[in-house]
Amino acid sequence: MSAASEPPPRSVSRRGLLGFAGAGAALTAAGFVGGRATAEASEASQAPSAEGAAGAYPFYGEHQPGIVTPAQDRLHFAAFDLTTTAREDLVALLTVWTAAAARMTAGQLVGDEATAYDSPPDDTGEAIGLPPSRLTITFGFGPSLFRDAQGRDRFGLAARQPKALARLPHFPADNLDPARSDGDLCVQACADDPQVAVHAVRNLSRLAFGTAALRWSQLGFGRTSSTSTAQATPRNLFGFKDGTANLKAEDSAALTEHLWVGAQDDPAAGWLAGGSYLVARRIAMTIETWDRTSLREQETLVGRDRREGAPLSGGTEFSEPDFALTGREGKPLMALNSHVRLAHPSQNDGVQMLRRGYNYTDGNDALGRLDAGLFFIAYVRDPRTHYIPMQTRMSRQDGLMEYLQHRASALFAVPPGASEGGHIGQALFA
Amino acid sequence: MSAASEPPPRSVSRRGLLGFAGAGAALTAAGFVGGRATAEASEASQAPSAEGAAGAYPFYGEHQPGIVTPAQDRLHFAAFDLTTTAREDLVALLTVWTAAAARMTAGQLVGDEATAYDSPPDDTGEAIGLPPSRLTITFGFGPSLFRDAQGRDRFGLAARQPKALARLPHFPADNLDPARSDGDLCVQACADDPQVAVHAVRNLSRLAFGTAALRWSQLGFGRTSSTSTAQATPRNLFGFKDGTANLKAEDSAALTEHLWVGAQDDPAAGWLAGGSYLVARRIAMTIETWDRTSLREQETLVGRDRREGAPLSGGTEFSEPDFALTGREGKPLMALNSHVRLAHPSQNDGVQMLRRGYNYTDGNDALGRLDAGLFFIAYVRDPRTHYIPMQTRMSRQDGLMEYLQHRASALFAVPPGASEGGHIGQALFA
Repeated sequence: MSAASEPPPRSVSRRGLLGFAGAGAALTAAGFVGGRATAEASEASQAPSAEGAAGAYPFYGEHQPGIVTPAQDRLHFAAFDLTTTAREDLVALLTVWTAAAARMTAGQLVGDEATAYDSPPDDTGEAIGLPPSRLTITFGFGPSLFRDAQGRDRFGLAARQPKALARLPHFPADNLDPARSDGDLCVQACADDPQVAVHAVRNLSRLAFGTAALRWSQLGFGRTSSTSTAQATPRNLFGFKDGTANLKAEDSAALTEHLWVGAQDDPAAGWLAGGSYLVARRIAMTIETWDRTSLREQETLVGRDRREGAPLSGGTEFSEPDFALTGREGKPLMALNSHVRLAHPSQNDGVQMLRRGYNYTDGNDALGRLDAGLFFIAYVRDPRTHYIPMQTRMSRQDGLMEYLQHRASALFAVPPGASEGGHIGQALFA
Repeated sequence: MSAASEPPPRSVSRRGLLGFAGAGAALTAAGFVGGRATAEASEASQAPSAEGAAGAYPFYGEHQPGIVTPAQDRLHFAAFDLTTTAREDLVALLTVWTAAAARMTAGQLVGDEATAYDSPPDDTGEAIGLPPSRLTITFGFGPSLFRDAQGRDRFGLAARQPKALARLPHFPADNLDPARSDGDLCVQACADDPQVAVHAVRNLSRLAFGTAALRWSQLGFGRTSSTSTAQATPRNLFGFKDGTANLKAEDSAALTEHLWVGAQDDPAAGWLAGGSYLVARRIAMTIETWDRTSLREQETLVGRDRREGAPLSGGTEFSEPDFALTGREGKPLMALNSHVRLAHPSQNDGVQMLRRGYNYTDGNDALGRLDAGLFFIAYVRDPRTHYIPMQTRMSRQDGLMEYLQHRASALFAVPPGASEGGHIGQALFA
């Protein structure tokens, strides 16, 4: 965590303070004006002002922010492909991104506006005056960063590619759009104000100009999970509470077991210890069909009642489901093909995920059906044990699959947090 | 305004109260279960709980809500085309939409969940538990509602088509996508919580099943205007404050002159008195190019400084620009092609608009450029005097046009507010 000793202000407004050191000429063309490092750069690492829309979280720390951080209300997610072949450009990009992320999460502008009247502004400006809004920025590395489609080592990193970092397999019923899948790098920007999240992705994209280009991006307008016991469970576009049984920040033993990569997990990829894996899936919901299904059928498929989110075996939202309990005709109250049953740790070798997804709506098709669904995000210690087996089974058996289409897929290794003066993923390049 | 005499609760949570009367068999198939009218239906028209995220505005009143209402943070806008040819279906739709809008803006569910376990739920559910979030729903009628492309009278309404309600002309540099333009009906849903706005459009779309189909829709993530002097001016994706000189709710003389259709404006279309016209334009911004332009050039093109939004002729944000003031070499400080000069009432026969636009970001193109911009909405008393001349001039002369592309266009007549027991647009059908 941050070494800052002063108590933080409760609300920080975005100000044009003096900037941070540039990371090399390769990035200067993007409008990033380097060489103005000052002592004020360390402001970016102040401790969090904790709660509320104006709150700021520290960027630096043991783990990256935006994983166990209480899920913010809005998302802008982006995947990038590198356009450079030079390892030093990649390192320079990560250095610049790290510094910019630290500033933006603290509610500061990227760079300095005042001294550059005849240059493009360092910061695009649309977040001027907005509070930090609990912004977090989380970076990840895709399998293609290590090896290209022909298996060639792109940046001298292939020997350190984690064994678990391979493209996800094709699951039954997958209907993927390659243009919205995969990517060399990812950026997850979450904030309570979408303008702050969009601003972050836009400015990181701009800083990457000449080094990496946006491959795909996704806005999410409403969180579909809680990552803290202090948060109420939100609803997905099926109208049901989502993420009741999620891993929560308060359960540190479970985080160690299921979320964070351990130091011994993969000896060749020790740089990832303290990190995690991010699974992203764009799951379209055929909501018009769902909306014509009876409430009884909907609740049976989910395995919970709609209003309270209690398992159909009884109790309240946080009651454990009783899969043995039967009702009329001896049928289990928690149907065999219900989503909750199939996703439950007891049916999945005890594994748990930290889900962090968002509802999306992206216009409509020519038939007037909303292009809407769930942008699924999960963080896991190892996708080979914590995601692939479960998704294989669910894509075959989950009754909800009739109303879902997986349209995009990506997997990223999420390095541990950066230290002040360092950059994201530094140990990978050491 | 509402006749409710009891003080409203400060915060209303969405509850599944008993529903309102159905409007006919044509709409029952959509999952709207009619015939459950009770005295509680009038709850929907309670007075506003005024301010704050939990606030509720009344749906019924002299004018429709969502026009001079203080601009909410998020938008879901939708245009519909009628799939029926029967006038009674159209009236039934407007009746059902009116009742549903009144309930949703009051934070209530559409219909009643408890009595329909073997039917599809009346309400899709994703807003259960969310406060009203200052939701407003505003309806409009497009020119095609009155006459089809061949000029034929579709619903016996042609004689009452307002003279000003014609498709907007092709402006210089327009690059329109017909699939995202026009429409028979429009719905503007604004709320501080996007999940509440999306829920409203989704449920209205569902109620329209068999009568009208979604033609296009647009999410807006951040407001770009203030409609009350109590609101701070927000920023657009050029990073500048937008809407400083907007018409404001407090200036009732200006609203009468520039916003509301007068009783004598169009004798054949007296039904529109107390209403307005809604101009919608999807304006893509080439932000990557903009971001490479110097701050000096940006400010010159806008005519204001970026940080404070003050006119370049001096003063503070709300100072009147001085177009006569010159600087070095005798050039006007407010450049001749600056946006603020060209949009100023003094350059436009004194006309003013009430702008109510939103920033949008809809993914990116294959080159990695964000598909982002401004979803422009303006309300005016008459588009022939208050929008078309200005846009004709600006599309030719505005220096910002180099960074803009108008990609979609629509015009709607917005009827006055509905009375309790009546429906939107009732006077048109009388």
